[in-house]
Amino acid sequence: MLVNRLAAALLAALGAISLSPVAHGEDGYDLWLRYPQLEGAAAEKLNAFNPVIATPSTRGETVDVALDELEAGLSSLLGRPLGTGSGGRITLDCGAPNADPSGRFRVTGSSAEIRIVADEPVGCLYGSFALLRELSLGRAPDQIALDEAPAMDLRMLNHWDNPDGSVERGYAGRSIFDWWHLPRRVDTRMIDYARANASLGINGTVVNNVNASPLFLTPRYLPKLAALADAWRPYGIRIYISARFSAPRDVGGLDTADPLDPQVRAWWKAKADEIYAAIPDFGGFLVKANSEGQPGPQDYGRTHADGANMLADAVGGRGTIIWRAFVYSAEDETDRAKQAYEEFVPLDGQFADNVIVQVKNGPIDFQPREPFHPMFGAMPNTRLMLEAQLTKEYLGFASHLAFLAPMWTEVLDAETGRGGDVADIIAPAGMAGVANTGSDRNWTGSDFDQANWYAFGRLAWDPALTADGIAREWAALTFSRDPAFLQAVVPMMMESRQAVVDYMTPLGLAHLMGTGHHYGPAPWVCDLARPEWNPCYYHKADARGIGFDRTAAGTDALAQYAPSVASGWSDPRTMDQDYLLWFHHVPWDFRVQSGRTLWQELAARYDRGVATVSDMRATWRTLAPFVDRQRFKAVSDMLEIQQEEAQWWRDASLAYWQDLNGLALPAGSAAPAMTLDEYRALEFPEAPGE
Amino acid sequence: MLVNRLAAALLAALGAISLSPVAHGEDGYDLWLRYPQLEGAAAEKLNAFNPVIATPSTRGETVDVALDELEAGLSSLLGRPLGTGSGGRITLDCGAPNADPSGRFRVTGSSAEIRIVADEPVGCLYGSFALLRELSLGRAPDQIALDEAPAMDLRMLNHWDNPDGSVERGYAGRSIFDWWHLPRRVDTRMIDYARANASLGINGTVVNNVNASPLFLTPRYLPKLAALADAWRPYGIRIYISARFSAPRDVGGLDTADPLDPQVRAWWKAKADEIYAAIPDFGGFLVKANSEGQPGPQDYGRTHADGANMLADAVGGRGTIIWRAFVYSAEDETDRAKQAYEEFVPLDGQFADNVIVQVKNGPIDFQPREPFHPMFGAMPNTRLMLEAQLTKEYLGFASHLAFLAPMWTEVLDAETGRGGDVADIIAPAGMAGVANTGSDRNWTGSDFDQANWYAFGRLAWDPALTADGIAREWAALTFSRDPAFLQAVVPMMMESRQAVVDYMTPLGLAHLMGTGHHYGPAPWVCDLARPEWNPCYYHKADARGIGFDRTAAGTDALAQYAPSVASGWSDPRTMDQDYLLWFHHVPWDFRVQSGRTLWQELAARYDRGVATVSDMRATWRTLAPFVDRQRFKAVSDMLEIQQEEAQWWRDASLAYWQDLNGLALPAGSAAPAMTLDEYRALEFPEAPGE
Repeated sequence: MLVNRLAAALLAALGAISLSPVAHGEDGYDLWLRYPQLEGAAAEKLNAFNPVIATPSTRGETVDVALDELEAGLSSLLGRPLGTGSGGRITLDCGAPNADPSGRFRVTGSSAEIRIVADEPVGCLYGSFALLRELSLGRAPDQIALDEAPAMDLRMLNHWDNPDGSVERGYAGRSIFDWWHLPRRVDTRMIDYARANASLGINGTVVNNVNASPLFLTPRYLPKLAALADAWRPYGIRIYISARFSAPRDVGGLDTADPLDPQVRAWWKAKADEIYAAIPDFGGFLVKANSEGQPGPQDYGRTHADGANMLADAVGGRGTIIWRAFVYSAEDETDRAKQAYEEFVPLDGQFADNVIVQVKNGPIDFQPREPFHPMFGAMPNTRLMLEAQLTKEYLGFASHLAFLAPMWTEVLDAETGRGGDVADIIAPAGMAGVANTGSDRNWTGSDFDQANWYAFGRLAWDPALTADGIAREWAALTFSRDPAFLQAVVPMMMESRQAVVDYMTPLGLAHLMGTGHHYGPAPWVCDLARPEWNPCYYHKADARGIGFDRTAAGTDALAQYAPSVASGWSDPRTMDQDYLLWFHHVPWDFRVQSGRTLWQELAARYDRGVATVSDMRATWRTLAPFVDRQRFKAVSDMLEIQQEEAQWWRDASLAYWQDLNGLALPAGSAAPAMTLDEYRALEFPEAPGE
Repeated sequence: MLVNRLAAALLAALGAISLSPVAHGEDGYDLWLRYPQLEGAAAEKLNAFNPVIATPSTRGETVDVALDELEAGLSSLLGRPLGTGSGGRITLDCGAPNADPSGRFRVTGSSAEIRIVADEPVGCLYGSFALLRELSLGRAPDQIALDEAPAMDLRMLNHWDNPDGSVERGYAGRSIFDWWHLPRRVDTRMIDYARANASLGINGTVVNNVNASPLFLTPRYLPKLAALADAWRPYGIRIYISARFSAPRDVGGLDTADPLDPQVRAWWKAKADEIYAAIPDFGGFLVKANSEGQPGPQDYGRTHADGANMLADAVGGRGTIIWRAFVYSAEDETDRAKQAYEEFVPLDGQFADNVIVQVKNGPIDFQPREPFHPMFGAMPNTRLMLEAQLTKEYLGFASHLAFLAPMWTEVLDAETGRGGDVADIIAPAGMAGVANTGSDRNWTGSDFDQANWYAFGRLAWDPALTADGIAREWAALTFSRDPAFLQAVVPMMMESRQAVVDYMTPLGLAHLMGTGHHYGPAPWVCDLARPEWNPCYYHKADARGIGFDRTAAGTDALAQYAPSVASGWSDPRTMDQDYLLWFHHVPWDFRVQSGRTLWQELAARYDRGVATVSDMRATWRTLAPFVDRQRFKAVSDMLEIQQEEAQWWRDASLAYWQDLNGLALPAGSAAPAMTLDEYRALEFPEAPGE
C-alpha cells in the first residue's frame, strides 16, 4: 500500500523503527517509480528549495494519493523526510472531481514555490507524477514549467488474462489479478499497478481476455470487479471488461444472443444496470466478435454495427463499447489483410456515439513491422482507436530486448492521406495496449519490457513525443541518470526493434513464426487447415521468387489506402524497401535499392539483425558500472538467449529459402548451423502464452 | 544474488551509492532471513562483541557462501558494516567437502570469539545460519553453544510442479522454476530458494510433479536440471526428479517399460549415466507408480520392488530411488486406508539398499487429521521416509491460517509399538515435504504458510523440537521479537490446525471436500465412478449413524497396527475421540466422553472451530503495532476469507447431516445460513491447483 510505503520511507529515514535491512539487489518491482536519491547539482538545488507540501484547501481520495506520492517521492529524492516548517512551498489547486476529467495540469516552479494546478483532482495526480519525473531527471525546481493535457480521451491497457490466472500471450508469469481471493483480498500489487498506470496517465483497463469467459458477466464476479474499481478509482482508472457476445446464452438462460432479439436486449440492459449499481463509473465493454471462433452478431445474420449498438444502448450514456476490428471470416479469402477493412468500412456512420472501433496498428496481427492499417482515415464518421501490443507475442516474447516505441511512432506518424496522420485520426478516441504484465517480480518478464509499458503510456498521453526521448526518460528513471549510461543505452534501445525485424521478418515479410505458440521460425509450415494460418500463405516463396502481391495485379489490398499512400508503395523499385515483400512478389534476383539482389539483401538483413544483437550484448557488458548486479545479470542472461534465438531465426529461415531457391549464400554469409530438417524437427513443449 | 545482496547491504550502509530508496512495506520475500537490526540488550552485546570474520584457511564455494551469509546477516543485525580490524573473531573450521556430508556443526561463543566447527563445508553453512538465527533471537555471543547434527539423512522438498509452470495443488501462483528460460537464465529466486532451504538444513529437492512429465528425462531438460544443480550445489542441495515409469515407451522409443526387460533396464542405465555425466551429484528418482492412473511395474505383472530395484540398479551407488507408497488399485476395495499396507508390507526385505519407500503421514491422503500410517514400523527391513504436505490441499489452501507443526509432531511422536515412534522409524531415511512454494512474492501465497516451510525443515533436522518452540522461533524471525507479540501469536498458531479439523472434519471424519479442486465442503457427493472418490464412502452417514467401521466387525484396518496401538483405538467409548469416526461407525445418539451425544458433540466441534477463527482474527487485530502494514493487511484479509469459509464448512456440513438424521441442532447452535440445495449448487470455476 502506498501509505505503508510512505510510512516505511519516512520511518526508515528517521530511524524510528527497523525495517528489513538486508537491501535487496533491485528486482525491478519499482518500475520507473524508484526515485533514487539525487546527486550533484540536482540534489543541491532540491535541497536548497527544501520542499514543504502545503495542505490544499480541498481534499479527497485522489488529492490524498497525490499528496502521498509527492511526500514519498520527494523524501526519496532528497534522502530525508520532508520538512514541515519554512521552505519551498508545493501547492496544489485541484478543482472538483469530474466524471469525465480533462486530465489537464500545469506545474510551475519558482525559487520559492511549485504550483500544481489542475481542472480536477486527477489532473493534480498527473501533475504530481510529472513533477516527480522532472525532478528525478535532474530538473531544478525553478525550471519546472509544464502545461499538459492528454492528446486523447482513452488511454487503456487490455489484459488478455483469464479467470484461472493464465494469460494468453503472457510471458511474465501468471495474471496479476487474483480473482480467486477477490473481493476479500486486494493485493498491494493492485495499488502499485494503479500507481504505475496513473504515473503515465493511463485511465482505463480491461481486466480480462478478449477471448472472454462469460464468468465476468456473472454475479460471482461483480464484487470482484467492484473491489478493483474501488481500489483504482483514486488513481483515475476506470475498469472495463471484455464481454462474450454469447453471454445471454452462456450464462443468461436465453436460447439466443441475437442482438435484435428483445429478450437479448433486455438481458444486456439488466446486466448493465446491475454492473452500474455496483460500479457507478464502470467503463464499458470490449468485444471481440466473429473473429477466430468467437461468437458475434454475424451468427444471427446481423452486422458488427447491430451488435455494437445493442450493447451501446444497454450501457447508454454511462459507458463505452469498444468493438474490435480484428476479424477474419471463417471462409477462405484471397487476402486476410483486406478483411477488416472490407467488413467495417461499409458500416461507417452506423455506429452509435458511444461506440469505438478498435483497430490494430497493422492489417494482419502485430507483426514486427506492418504498414499502418488502411482503416485509419477510411471511416471518418466512426471513432477509431489504435490497438498496440505490448506483450511481444511476435517479437521474441520477454526474452528479446525490443523497444517498441519506434514501431508505434512509425504508425502514429504515418500519413493516412485521409485527414491527417494516424495520431490525428485516433485523437477523438484513444489508444489501447495489450498489456505485458504478469506476476513476475519485475512485472513484465524482463527489465527492458517495462520500457514498452512506459512508452505506450507516454505515447497515449502525447503521441508527439519521440521514441528516443521516451527511451532516455525511461532509462534514466529505471537504471541510471549517468550521461555515459544514457549515451550507450538509448541507441541500443532505439535499434532493437529493427534488429528483430531483420532477423525474423526482413523486407516486409510477416507471419513466419511457429504454429500455435508463435515461438521461433517456421516459414516451412504450409499444410494447416485454413490457408491464412500458414506462413507459406504470407511469404508465397518458391523457386523463382518471394513476397505477397497486393498490387492491382494481385489482391489489390493497396487500393484500400488513400491514393497518395498507395502510390508510394506501388513500385517495388522506388518504394520504402521495408515494406517490399508485404506488397510485392519479386524474383530472387530482383535488384533492390542497395544494388544487391533481393536474395543478397535478404541475407544481409538477417546478418545485420544478428550482428545488432551482438552489438547490444557488447554495449550492455560495458554498462555494468551503472546497473545493480541483479538487474544487470538478468538483462545479460536474456540477451544471451536473444542472441541464440536471433541466430536460429536467421539460420532456419535462410535454410528454408535456400531449399526453395537453390541459391548459394552470398559471400561472407555463414552457412546455417543445422539442416533444414533439424530446424523443422524442433519442438517446444512448454512454450508459454498459448 | 547473494553477493549482490551483500554488496547492496554494505554499500547502502556506507552510503557509497544510492539504491532504490523508497522502502517497501515488507512483502514477505525475505522469509525468516530478514535479520532486522537488533535493539536493546541484544544490540548492545553484539556491538560490544564487535564481530570480525576471520578468513578461514580453506575456502570453496560453500565456505564462501557461509562467509557471505555471515557478513550480510551480521551487518544487517548490527545496522552497520562489519569491522575489519580488532573485535570478536568469528572463525570457521570447515573440513573438506564430502559426497555424503554429516551436516554436523558446533558453534561456541565466548566474549572474544565465536567458533564454527564442522566436519565439512556444508556443516559450516548450517552452523552459520544457526548462529545468525540465535543472534536474531537475541542470544548474546558468549551464550552461543550449539552442537547439532541432523536426525535424518534426507530432508527434502517435493515440488508438484509441471513443465508448463502450473503447480498441482499449488496455491501460491506459478512454479518458481522457469523451465522456459533455463538453462540460460538462473533467476535470483533460485539462489534465494537455496538459501532458505539451506538455512533449515534441507538438502534435497525433487523439482517436478510426481504425476511426472517424461520431458524431464529428455535431452532438452538435462541442461536445465544441470544449471539448477550447479546453482544449488554450494548450498548443499541435491537435485532429484520424479521419473515417469513408462518413460522408455514415452520418450525412449521402446515398446515396453517392463522393469525386467533387458532393453528397458539398459535404457534406464544409459539414462542414468547421461544424467550423472551432467550432474555428478544427482540425487536420484522419485516414483509414483500404479497409483491414480500412473504407469508402473504392475502394468507388466511385476511388483513395486521389481520396479524400484530396476531403477536402483540403474543409478547404482550414485543415487537413491524413492518409491511412493501412496497407491490404490483400480479395482474396488473394501477400504482404501488398507491398500498401501497390503501392497507394500509383503515386500519388506525385497527392496535394494538404495531404495526408500516414501509413506504419507496417514493412510488416506493428507487429511486435516489422520492416525499415523500403519506401515510405519511394519517394514523393519525397508527404509521408510515420511511424506508430509506443506501445501494445504485439504486444509483451506493458502487462505486458511493453519500451522502444521502440531500435525507433524503428532505423527512423529506417535508410538508405533514396533520399534519406536515414527521419528525413530524414519530416522535411517528422512522426511519429504510437498512444497507450498510458488511465484507469489511471499513464496507461499500467505505469510503464515511460510511457517509451514520453516517448520518442516526444522522438524526434518530435529523431530524432537516442539511445535510451539518452532512457532516462536519463526514468528520472532518473521515478524517481531517483541515478547508481547509472541505471547499472542504463538498460541494463535498453535490452535490453528485444530480449528481446521473442527470446522472441516471433526471427530475423525475425513475426505469431505469438493470433488476435483478439493475446495470447500461436499459431504453429499456419493455418485462418482469409483467408490473411494466419494465423501460418502468415508463418512458412511445415514439416518442412524456416522463413521467408518475399521474394527474387526468392519474392514479391520485396525489390525494393521501393532496390538498395543490397535487396542487403544478399539473401544469408541474410551479411545481418543479425535479418531472416533475414523475407526468406528456409531449412532447419532452415541454418548461421547464429553457426556454429549455424538450429534451434539459434532455440532459443538464445528462451532468451536468457527469460534477459534473468530478468536484468531481478534488476536491478529491486536497485533497491528508489531507488524508492517502490508503484511498485517494481507494476513487480515486472509483471516476474513478463512472466517467466511469456516462458517461455510460448518453450515454446509451440518445442513447435510441434518438432512440425513432429521435431528434439530443442539440449543445455542445456529441454523445454517443457506439451504442444503444452495450449498450443493455452489460452483468454483476458477479454483486453483487442480
